[in-house]
Amino acid sequence: VLVGTRNPLNMGAAARAMSNFGFHDLRVVRPYEVAFREARSAVGAAALLRSAEEHKTLAEAVADCTLVVGTTAIGRRQLKQPVKRLEAGAKHIRKKLQSSRVAILFGSEKVGLSNTDLSHCNFLIHVPTRKEHLSMNLGQSVAVCLYELSRSALPEAIAGKPEAIKAGDLERVTQLVLEAATASGYVNDRSRPAIEQRVRRLLRRMRVPAEDTGLVLGILRQILWKLNQ
Amino acid sequence: VLVGTRNPLNMGAAARAMSNFGFHDLRVVRPYEVAFREARSAVGAAALLRSAEEHKTLAEAVADCTLVVGTTAIGRRQLKQPVKRLEAGAKHIRKKLQSSRVAILFGSEKVGLSNTDLSHCNFLIHVPTRKEHLSMNLGQSVAVCLYELSRSALPEAIAGKPEAIKAGDLERVTQLVLEAATASGYVNDRSRPAIEQRVRRLLRRMRVPAEDTGLVLGILRQILWKLNQ
Repeated sequence: VLVGTRNPLNMGAAARAMSNFGFHDLRVVRPYEVAFREARSAVGAAALLRSAEEHKTLAEAVADCTLVVGTTAIGRRQLKQPVKRLEAGAKHIRKKLQSSRVAILFGSEKVGLSNTDLSHCNFLIHVPTRKEHLSMNLGQSVAVCLYELSRSALPEAIAGKPEAIKAGDLERVTQLVLEAATASGYVNDRSRPAIEQRVRRLLRRMRVPAEDTGLVLGILRQILWKLNQ
Repeated sequence: VLVGTRNPLNMGAAARAMSNFGFHDLRVVRPYEVAFREARSAVGAAALLRSAEEHKTLAEAVADCTLVVGTTAIGRRQLKQPVKRLEAGAKHIRKKLQSSRVAILFGSEKVGLSNTDLSHCNFLIHVPTRKEHLSMNLGQSVAVCLYELSRSALPEAIAGKPEAIKAGDLERVTQLVLEAATASGYVNDRSRPAIEQRVRRLLRRMRVPAEDTGLVLGILRQILWKLNQ
């Protein structure tokens, strides 16, 4: 998932790396329109770019995924999510890919992913680079991540882990919690953005099992209904 | 060692990847002069490009190295050198680098390395790509190769796992959720024991981070207070 990409060459490069390493499902969120149009000529990746889905919001773009992973150069930012080195993160992602969809997010060239973007993530991956020059070119970062993901590694056994909730359902839970927190007076207009990010991150770390989605939504809806009476 | 590179963006991208992964000694052989001049503006890699050595022949460029490795997309060419997959090749290269200099050659965008270029190589490395789309972008290929070379066996987690909530706090959360579910009418006396068990199990699987205990308890208490008004 490319979020807010500006440069058509980078978009094309990302698509080419996907094609090289056998990944097909490109999604773009809030792309710079000109970039998106111009990128469609990327060497060997035209078909992939033609079938790329465009989304208005990140929440919509990752709704059908059970794992959402952000990429970060770390830098001076205080990160609120767990950060794994690419190799460790890729192991986790490969395991998950056997049974469900995983979104890997790449931010814009200038600023990367915003804190709100990051709050959608279960964890972040970081390509270990030299501390004097942390920030990679976008197309190269995509290539390195997909190389590591496709690098042969036999599947590890998955013994009876519960199926994870989809990001779309999790966002529904997030919004219901926030509505209940607002209706009860815990949150006001001023505090809402900060609390929203914290709640979203918290819920992503909590790993709600898919089978309990109904229970969680049911309780929250009932509470909200009662609060609004 | 970049051999016959045409596109300044690729030359800049190669230099940037070198800088990211801690490689300093760029050599160029028969570059397209304009490309070489224009590349010098690459983000964060200007110094590296300024100090790049230019050589008329490949032989001269690799003269001080004890191991010369070519990169290849394989394709339809009959190769006369041993070809290793990147991972295996990188292991060999890392070992050699402890005691001497190793040259890694990248050919031009259109045709890669010529048979004459290849004849200078001890072996070739190949980034495993999809057979329908073998050929990588030059800058991305450099990035992937240098990533694999610099990948080390350091501990995996960077910003480790968040500290988990204590069982006592978790039970407090459990009870508050049940009280809220009861006050809202989701649970009644008959259904309570079964729901209580499900909620307790669910919360244990969800791994609430310790640092968020206050947030969770705060939201729940406020909701409960409002429900009971």
